[in-house]
Amino acid sequence: MLVLSSPSGAGKTTISRAILRHEQDLAMSVSVTTRSARGGEVSGKDYYFISEAEYHTLVAEKKLLEHAKVFDNYYGTPRDHVERELAAGRDVMFDIDWQGTQQLKASARDDLVSVFILPPSIKELERRLRGRAQDTEEVMQRRMARASDEMSHWPEYDYIVVNQNVDESIEQVKSILTAERLRRSRQTGMADFVNGMRGA
Amino acid sequence: MLVLSSPSGAGKTTISRAILRHEQDLAMSVSVTTRSARGGEVSGKDYYFISEAEYHTLVAEKKLLEHAKVFDNYYGTPRDHVERELAAGRDVMFDIDWQGTQQLKASARDDLVSVFILPPSIKELERRLRGRAQDTEEVMQRRMARASDEMSHWPEYDYIVVNQNVDESIEQVKSILTAERLRRSRQTGMADFVNGMRGA
Repeated sequence: MLVLSSPSGAGKTTISRAILRHEQDLAMSVSVTTRSARGGEVSGKDYYFISEAEYHTLVAEKKLLEHAKVFDNYYGTPRDHVERELAAGRDVMFDIDWQGTQQLKASARDDLVSVFILPPSIKELERRLRGRAQDTEEVMQRRMARASDEMSHWPEYDYIVVNQNVDESIEQVKSILTAERLRRSRQTGMADFVNGMRGA
Repeated sequence: MLVLSSPSGAGKTTISRAILRHEQDLAMSVSVTTRSARGGEVSGKDYYFISEAEYHTLVAEKKLLEHAKVFDNYYGTPRDHVERELAAGRDVMFDIDWQGTQQLKASARDDLVSVFILPPSIKELERRLRGRAQDTEEVMQRRMARASDEMSHWPEYDYIVVNQNVDESIEQVKSILTAERLRRSRQTGMADFVNGMRGA
């Protein structure tokens, strides 16, 4: 399980989509949310847009791997899809916040790799958030405050990528994925492979 | 510190040289050895070829970071060069065996990343060792036995690369280096960077 977190506007979505296009054996976890879709968002790709009643049913039935309230909306990760992909031997990437990461860590233990993506500067973050131009000034201020809050959780992550250049950041996250797949502890079957060569 | 180990013939030297050419801020540690130079080997690049008396002086004066006897020859890593490179902020790559890795680990603690390179099969390893064609059959048998012995130490390494395709293996080791440099624990100054952005 590969978790990408970042303050909104740091480029996480661009990075995760590029990686998904280039990496085999990697599936994306699509979250549920009770917030309404923004322009261009597609249900089942960006999020599953559900009602609050549906959300509370999923929580009650323990069908979410993690869930959290952000502003006035609820978010969560459907358990089914993730467990199916993992069982099929694929890795799963998550685009979730620090609250979700903490919950996922508690259940996944050492099979979770977490990456925190930072903007190159606060000015750049503000520029990118304003670029979206979909929010009122009040919402914008709340977003900046939330970005600051989100950033304060960087020490809880395994890797830190400062997104100065998006192509470089994509390569960096791909390197993290490649390296983590080469970890001895993840290479099941290696003992048999070596013993076979050694005639043991 | 990035350690590459492998049985002789698994492709470690090819891989380490390619990485050295492409990576900035990476220096190679050149070992001393009491064995004589093979055809094409250059002193100061492949090894520093020294006498046994010189070797024992280096050991006595604690000028070697690690040292070991392999067959009838001594090998060691000069401390000076490594410490100078690390102090200058560069990473250092080591081409040493499991004995050297164990000693280096004991002194470097968590600032050492170790990669074990395996041949794709025992047949391929034997083919590559025979390809060198510089050794008698007896030496060849000793090399195969030593390769088997060396391979038995794979569980002591952080990462395992099976060298099926040398270009792919080079990319994999580069990814390991990139990822390890992005580890939160290695990114000193990150707390100041984030606090600066948060206005804290």
